[in-house]
This record gives sequence, C-alpha cells and structure tokens, in this order.
Amino acid sequence: MIYLWLEYNPPVPLRLQIEATRGSARTGKLITPHGEVETPVFMPVGTLASVKGVSQDVLEELGVEILLANTYHLYLRPGVETVRQMGGLHRFMSWERAILTDSGGFQVFSLNELRKVSEEGVAFRSHLDGSPHFLSPEKAMEIQIGLGADVIMAFDECTEYPAETHRARASMELTLRWAERCKSYFEEHRHEVPWGRKVHVGTAAPGCPGERNLADVAELRSAGQPRVAVPTRPEATQALFGIVQGGMDRGLRRESAERTIDIGFPGYAIGGLSVGEPRAVTREIVESTLEHLPSNQPRYLMGVGTPEEIAQYAQLGVDMMDCVLPTRAARHGLLFTSEGKISIKQARYAQDESALDPACDCRVCRRYSRAYLRHLYASNELLAQVLNTVHNLYYYLATMRTVRAWVRAGCVTAPGVSRA
Amino acid sequence: MIYLWLEYNPPVPLRLQIEATRGSARTGKLITPHGEVETPVFMPVGTLASVKGVSQDVLEELGVEILLANTYHLYLRPGVETVRQMGGLHRFMSWERAILTDSGGFQVFSLNELRKVSEEGVAFRSHLDGSPHFLSPEKAMEIQIGLGADVIMAFDECTEYPAETHRARASMELTLRWAERCKSYFEEHRHEVPWGRKVHVGTAAPGCPGERNLADVAELRSAGQPRVAVPTRPEATQALFGIVQGGMDRGLRRESAERTIDIGFPGYAIGGLSVGEPRAVTREIVESTLEHLPSNQPRYLMGVGTPEEIAQYAQLGVDMMDCVLPTRAARHGLLFTSEGKISIKQARYAQDESALDPACDCRVCRRYSRAYLRHLYASNELLAQVLNTVHNLYYYLATMRTVRAWVRAGCVTAPGVSRA
Repeated sequence: MIYLWLEYNPPVPLRLQIEATRGSARTGKLITPHGEVETPVFMPVGTLASVKGVSQDVLEELGVEILLANTYHLYLRPGVETVRQMGGLHRFMSWERAILTDSGGFQVFSLNELRKVSEEGVAFRSHLDGSPHFLSPEKAMEIQIGLGADVIMAFDECTEYPAETHRARASMELTLRWAERCKSYFEEHRHEVPWGRKVHVGTAAPGCPGERNLADVAELRSAGQPRVAVPTRPEATQALFGIVQGGMDRGLRRESAERTIDIGFPGYAIGGLSVGEPRAVTREIVESTLEHLPSNQPRYLMGVGTPEEIAQYAQLGVDMMDCVLPTRAARHGLLFTSEGKISIKQARYAQDESALDPACDCRVCRRYSRAYLRHLYASNELLAQVLNTVHNLYYYLATMRTVRAWVRAGCVTAPGVSRA
Repeated sequence: MIYLWLEYNPPVPLRLQIEATRGSARTGKLITPHGEVETPVFMPVGTLASVKGVSQDVLEELGVEILLANTYHLYLRPGVETVRQMGGLHRFMSWERAILTDSGGFQVFSLNELRKVSEEGVAFRSHLDGSPHFLSPEKAMEIQIGLGADVIMAFDECTEYPAETHRARASMELTLRWAERCKSYFEEHRHEVPWGRKVHVGTAAPGCPGERNLADVAELRSAGQPRVAVPTRPEATQALFGIVQGGMDRGLRRESAERTIDIGFPGYAIGGLSVGEPRAVTREIVESTLEHLPSNQPRYLMGVGTPEEIAQYAQLGVDMMDCVLPTRAARHGLLFTSEGKISIKQARYAQDESALDPACDCRVCRRYSRAYLRHLYASNELLAQVLNTVHNLYYYLATMRTVRAWVRAGCVTAPGVSRA
C-alpha cells in the first residue's frame, strides 16, 4: 500500500479557534497540521521522542493531542539528520498527532558550567560526552525545521533568577534580537520541513514467525496492515512561536511582550519562569504578562506546574502548558490524586486494596490496588514506572478537561451542559 | 457492586484435554480454575507478579493464558502474608487467567554460597539483605497455597551439573522424599487457598479529579466501574505437580519418573535441565524422560529455551514451558525475528525504516521502525524495554500457535484447516 499526497493547496497557518470564554479564561481548538488540540491543553513531555515508559497507543487512549519533545536532547540523540531522513518526528516516532519542540535554549541554560553565551549564540558541551556544540538562533531553527514539529520555539535566553534589572533588560534585548533572527531564518527555510519528502510504504508482508515450514500457518499470516502512516497535508506549515522574557520585572515583561508582538508570531510563550522564584511571583508575572498578549492567538506558559497551578493558569487565560512534573514524579512514586499527593512507597499502602484514586477512571485506577502499585514500586519493577506515569498523565489531562468544561459552562444557559 | 460465590460444587481437578496428536506431539487445553490454556503453551515469567514492563491488559491482548511467578521472590517481596491477605496472586495482580508458581527450589539452588541443603530442607540467605530463611517441602507448600496459583510445584533439589552418578542418585532420592512430604502437606492444607475468602467490592466511586468545585464535571464522572474482579469457582482447587530429577542419567531419569508417578500427581515436570549441560544432552534427556510420563497428563519442561527449542520440545510432546529468555533478552535489546536474532543497539539500524520483523503482526512491528526502536534502546529509554518485551513475547506465543496449528493439521483431512 502506498500513500501519495501530490495535490497542492495554499499554506494553512496554525490558528486558535476560541469557542467559549469565562473571565480571562477561554477554551477552544488549536488547529495544527497534525490535528486539532482542545485548549487549554497540558502537553506531556516526550524528551527523546518518547514519553518515558508509555507507548504511543496508550498516549492516544489517554487523549493526548499534542506532545512536547526537547530539541537539545534530540539534537544529541539520535541527531537531527536521522530524524530528518526519517521524515520528521511524527513519522520517526509514529505519532500522527501534534508535536511542539522547545528551542533548546532552556536546556543549554540549565547546563551552567558547560555553556558560554555570546551575541552569536551559545557554546556548550554535551552532558553526555562533553563534546563541544554551538546553538545560534539560525541553528535552533535549522534543527527544529529538521525535527518537523508542528509548533517550534524561538531560541531565547532564559534569564537566571535572581537577576538585577539591568541584567534582565540586557538578557531580554538579546532574546529580542535572537527572535528577529529566528523569524528571518524560519521564513526563508520553512519549506525545508521534511513532512512531504517521504512516502510511506507499508512494510508488513505476509508470512509467519517461528517455524516457517509448518503446514498450517494461515492463522498467523499478516493481514498486510502497514505501520501507522502519518498523513500530512502538503499545504500545512510549521508555526514559530515567540517567547516573552524580562525576568521578574512587570515593566520589562510588558516591553518584551509588545516588542515580540511587533516582530510578529502566530503564538506567544511566556518563558523564564519556574526558575527558582516564589510561586506568588510566578503567578503575578503570568497574570500581568497575559494582559499584553493578543487575545486571538495561542498563549503558552512554559514549564509549569502542579495540577492546581495548571488549572489556575488556564483560568487566567493560558492556552498551553507543559511540565515534566507528572511524568518525573511518577517515576519517583509520587502520584497525584483527588485526595492529594500520594507517595506510593509508604508501608501504609502495603495491604491497601483500594484504588490509587477512587475518583479516577484511568486504566490504572480501574484495575490495580494501591497494594499492588506499592509492591511494584518497592520491588523496583519496571511496571511501576509505566503505571504511575499513565495515572499521573491521566490526572493532568482530566484536570484540563475539567477546566475546559468549567469555561464552557460559563457561556451556556444551563450549568452541566457538556460539549464533550 | 458485590460479587458473592456461595454455592457449593465438588472440587474440579485440573485436567488436560487432548484434541489432536501428531507423532509424539499433542495439542489441547489445560483446564484450570482460572480459565483454559491452549497447549502446548509457553508461559511468560512474571517473577514478582509482573512481567517486567508489560501491563496485564497488554498480556491479555497478546493472548497470554498462563503466567509463571517465582515463589522465592514473592516470599521475600511482598511476602506471602500480604498476597494471602489480598486474596491470592490473581487478585493481588489483577490477573484473572491462570498462574503457575515454581517451588523456590531452583532459585535457592542458584544462590550457591548463600544456601545449605539438609534432609529437612534448605537454609539460605536472602539475596536482598542477607537475612536467614529456611524452605522445606512443607514450607514451600504453605507459601504456594498462600500465593494461590492454579498450578504449584513440588519442592525439589535441582541437581548441579556436572554430577557423579551417586550424587545424582542421592539428590533424586531426596527429591522423591520431598515430593511425598509436599503431597501430604498439600492434601491436608489445599482448602486453605485464599481464593474464596475475599469478596471483591468495586471501589470506583463517582467523582472527578482535579478542581472538584467546578460546575461542569459530568463528563468526568466515573461510571462506577469496579476494578477487574477475579471470579473463582469455589469448587476449583490448586493442582500440585511432581518434578522428575536424575541429573543427565537416562536410567535415573526413568526411575525418578516412575517413582514420582507412583506418588501420584495431576501433572509432571522435568526439572534440573538448562543448568549448563550441552543442548544435545538436554534434548536427549527430555526425549527419553517423556517416554516414561503419562500420556494423558500435562508434561511441563522447566526453564527452556530459544524459539527453536520450544518448538522442538513441543514437537516431542511437551505441553508447558517457561523461560526468562524472551523477556530478559528484550531488556538487553536482543530481539527474536523470523529472520533471526537482532541486536537492536547496532548502528546499522539507526536509519532503518523497516519494521523490526516484517513478517510479524505484533503491535510493535505494526507501528514502529527499527530506527525508532534502536534510538529508544541507545538512549536508554524505558519504552525500549517495554516494546522489546512485547515483541519477544508475541514471537514466542506465535511460535507456539504455529506448533499447535501444525499438530492440528496432522489430524484433519485437509492441510490448512485451522481451528483458530
């Protein structure tokens, strides 16, 4: 079976279709080249083109509509050339829904001793083998075009915390100059996204594993079903988002927002938060910055937060969020439930037959007891990490579903009417 | 929702229902208290009540009808009392299909320096914390009754390889005396299996995770679906299998078989193989021992082997096999395919878009490329272990399906008629 997409249509930019609002909050759909994403949305982190321990079909079942992958990590492994050769991240990881890549800026920022920032870009050493590398705005674009996510991010400098005002301003100015360079490079090279280049050919041939000379193998023969194809419309293009910086200074944040909007992007992110500042400061900066972002374009708050926080930020008007917390905490046995956070390693759960979260409908809570999950974790079983991650992701996604329902309930005649 | 099973029916012993034969080989069904198992069967190993990295619903989808769990490991973690309190392994791990536990004999045999064998039993130290323990035939029965598998194994001494004839005889005699003690204890205590004791009460209550005070939560409300119940007929009982030992001596093997049959069990295992002897010796001992085992009862060959070997042993007339090879090899990136064994870590697969095994229908081969699997393994991603294990198990199970089809094809009028 061979899929070919040869017809030409004009480019379709990413857009946000707002369907309901309630105060500052809004719900709607982000229309991407790889499907629609209900917003506000929490994006699970698949650092190396995999959400650790969770297969893509389970992510689909969880209702994940967009994933985040990390440019820095993918640049090191497997390298952009490999992903480009394979037709981009979607085809490489067999994920036909939307993907967003970060710019690598935050990751190299986190390398501390291993990096050096200049006007041109950032020299850094790989955390894997110490090999030297250089990321510039142009290079970050080149890589992200090769990876082929639906949404890609401008290369920014994540201002450290705390920072003096003059330092925060200098950093913001650098991010603005880099934003211009990112946009220029992207507009010249966006056609290089590898989506259209590869034609998927189903590879599953008839046959049977094992003893091939046995008489009755009919029941084992493959139906010739191809691996999942990733149909991408040729008119679709990547979208480059700008990033607002400015440290913890409301004035700088406003200026950063306005000047980034002047450059012009189809969506805007708030970066440089969750870098050690108090949560009250995070919230203040988010709230004040949101006022200066266009109401008809997607707003992405990077790298937050707890379930309570993502619900709060969504209620303030954020459309997109990502965080490693649900997946990383899961691998450490920390589970989010409607009754609060649970550390499943505790001995008190050793003979607890109840579901992890009695109010949760996820496949883990429907099937397994706390006692079993505690045993898996205490015994260092792989399945502990798998099941804990599935539950925490479900909990985060359910939290966002609840917020969306809450927003919709604000604009319909009777509460409780669901558009689900 | 509450399940109660109160009616009384007479005990139903485990039995093998042979449906077709071809030479020494046979195919049929093992009727167990927790469902029917098509034989010959390969039993995946779930050492600590989990097949490493694979959730129970995926095992069901793979068509796994019986799992093996390790008594030694479960005795140490979480401990038999916990499992007994939870109603046995089936309910503890939420697996309503059949389970077999080994006796712990092979595991303590493997401890080498940490064990001391006497007439009474085996003193050993835990590999986890060095704590002292003692396993006797009676203790092994007590533990296995508490764990509540469908098939449990007599506590035997696994004779080391190589062994002089007098040593192999002494070891065999010890195993025979232990077999008598196992049977006596089991017959007195089999009613203590915890299957009937617990009543499952569904715990999933209506509610929603996340922001509980939001207006529209209807779409999130649980349907009140209980976790999987494990319906066990009260008339069902565990089955205790005897184990044939005798080292690599055909005469001793014959004597061990005959005298174990004299004691009387509903099934017989061939133990003490795959302990370092040449494969030709393994095969010779298997073939000669099988001649002395009852043709109307299940025959279980413990701890083998490669896909080729399990197909060969099944063709010799073995009904049940288990081995850590598919799961352990998977975690080391060694994958069984119709084109031979593949080490997925090799750089040659870095840009290989083809399916792992083009002739395989498993969910991994249908969706992912060798390039992606290679990337996951090279990047030490959890998902590598999960996907590799799923594929290898599928391959083993498909190998057994092929053998069953081959046996059935020998006794029907036209080749290619499948009963699948």
